[in-house]
Amino acid sequence: MAILGATGAVGQELLTLLAKRHFPTSAVRLLASPRSMGRTLPFRGVNVPVSAVSEGLFDDVQIAFLSAGAEAAKTWAPIAMGKGAVVIDNSSAFRMDEDVPLVIPEINWHAVADHHRLFPVGNCTAIILMMAVAPLQQFGKLKRLVVSTYQSVSGAGARAMDELQTQMRAIAKGEELSYEVFPQPIACNLFSHNTPINSHGYNGEEWKVIEETRKTLGLPDLAIEVTCIRVPVMRAHSMSVNVEFDGRAPDIDEMRNALAEAKGLKVVDDRENNHFPTPCEAADQDDVLVGRLRVDVSNPNAISLFCSGDQLRKGAALNGIQIAERLVSGGRV
Amino acid sequence: MAILGATGAVGQELLTLLAKRHFPTSAVRLLASPRSMGRTLPFRGVNVPVSAVSEGLFDDVQIAFLSAGAEAAKTWAPIAMGKGAVVIDNSSAFRMDEDVPLVIPEINWHAVADHHRLFPVGNCTAIILMMAVAPLQQFGKLKRLVVSTYQSVSGAGARAMDELQTQMRAIAKGEELSYEVFPQPIACNLFSHNTPINSHGYNGEEWKVIEETRKTLGLPDLAIEVTCIRVPVMRAHSMSVNVEFDGRAPDIDEMRNALAEAKGLKVVDDRENNHFPTPCEAADQDDVLVGRLRVDVSNPNAISLFCSGDQLRKGAALNGIQIAERLVSGGRV
Repeated sequence: MAILGATGAVGQELLTLLAKRHFPTSAVRLLASPRSMGRTLPFRGVNVPVSAVSEGLFDDVQIAFLSAGAEAAKTWAPIAMGKGAVVIDNSSAFRMDEDVPLVIPEINWHAVADHHRLFPVGNCTAIILMMAVAPLQQFGKLKRLVVSTYQSVSGAGARAMDELQTQMRAIAKGEELSYEVFPQPIACNLFSHNTPINSHGYNGEEWKVIEETRKTLGLPDLAIEVTCIRVPVMRAHSMSVNVEFDGRAPDIDEMRNALAEAKGLKVVDDRENNHFPTPCEAADQDDVLVGRLRVDVSNPNAISLFCSGDQLRKGAALNGIQIAERLVSGGRV
Repeated sequence: MAILGATGAVGQELLTLLAKRHFPTSAVRLLASPRSMGRTLPFRGVNVPVSAVSEGLFDDVQIAFLSAGAEAAKTWAPIAMGKGAVVIDNSSAFRMDEDVPLVIPEINWHAVADHHRLFPVGNCTAIILMMAVAPLQQFGKLKRLVVSTYQSVSGAGARAMDELQTQMRAIAKGEELSYEVFPQPIACNLFSHNTPINSHGYNGEEWKVIEETRKTLGLPDLAIEVTCIRVPVMRAHSMSVNVEFDGRAPDIDEMRNALAEAKGLKVVDDRENNHFPTPCEAADQDDVLVGRLRVDVSNPNAISLFCSGDQLRKGAALNGIQIAERLVSGGRV
């Protein structure tokens, strides 16, 4: 097994989860850009050296996790596959390619065919959204989603997490805030997701959520409105979601039960104590938290919910490992 | 003039704005609960003592600003009015009373009749929302709003602002977070607005937004879905708003121009630089910032926007002072 981008936020989470889940591999080859050479990362009690990525290092690799951005994925995925590896890529490089499945194991494993050997992990926001929404399809056809996100800084990587930490320290000391990863200070602030705005007025993150949700759910015409906002939170993405059905909205108790039974979800919906999903409670958890369930007073065909999911876990590393586990248990690698 | 609740976050903002706007008053009587006795607050270069509120202190008061919560308002508003004062109250005590106008001067001053002497200032979130949405009515009848908020801690008062500051200091030092004002840590977190959940599943803040928006806009049947979330931001509320019209959505350029011409609004809508309203830019500003204007790709009859407004200014103190200014210029006091 190899991990490209091992020193990044997702790379390190991959290592943590591979160990925690006792993933059946004898060794892990850690790859990164040349500037990480000389570093080591702990894996199962051993300090594993990080190597500068090169073609030969994919020899004899059965599973290659790529977590180094879209450009690196376009370079290294064909090389790894050419040497016989199955590739699980966390970037957006291949997600929308035809005949490439975009898989959340709990939702659409049926999209995987025998010849598939490239498995992009979807956008983190789209995954967390779908974990909460997909089980609702048992109550009727989805007509329209209106989503506003509260996205953690971890989605922008380990350096963004450091930047928020540094800015909070500066605020505590009454100093000026400096920034480098984001185009403006994130501590005590929030702003439109830092991806370019397209001609329709949507930022890149929003467009990914729209396209990927349609692909993974197999609903190419699903109406989705989404606003993606970065907030000063470390590592879990939250979202406020309005779901309109083609017919009458389901009963809330039935919906709560269905969500509680869905794999990978945990219902946190305590009205009496105003206790609902929060990013702090979702952090470091495999399950996506979902709650604040209610029939929309503005539309009898709609419900609202709020969910929080760890961006580095189910939004990235965990989903990738779950794909790998399915491939292993299915005898595919 | 008297200010009850002078030592609170809104009270102090009232003092700042009265001085800045050269409000025509010779003196201000500062009133608070007995525990603030002995304190002084600066006003126009003089340190004014804070007195414990009592009936006699409303003698000869023409305008009484109340900013001490609903219970205090119910006690002191009738007393102040009995002594001849006009009352401008920042609490929710009287907002929904029949024959009490709920006024945003830019939007519905026409609701004020000659006999009115009690002027509640609306909920801060509702005011900021309406500032952005009301001008859109020139393009067609509003059919439905879907709103998700990103609310600053200032709405919970000066102690909540201190609490966020203290928690950021603790995070910077790697210490445990303590909390008292909010039911959980707010730094690096976010949660459902800290007001009780009603039988429909909405928190108190959400219900106020629904009821007050309908009253102020004079649209008792307007469909509104709203999710109110506290975020670790100091003093400006932001919101993601989807506006559905009864007919086709307006052209975005026409809409941008209309919003730019509306009083009390500033358009921040720079797609090229991904520069849109943020709470940091809205803080300490009179204008509500509005932008991220786009036709909703999920519904040709809808548009989306994002706005940020200073919760202590237009959301509270400024709106109250604007009411007082109108009363003075109209010869009503």
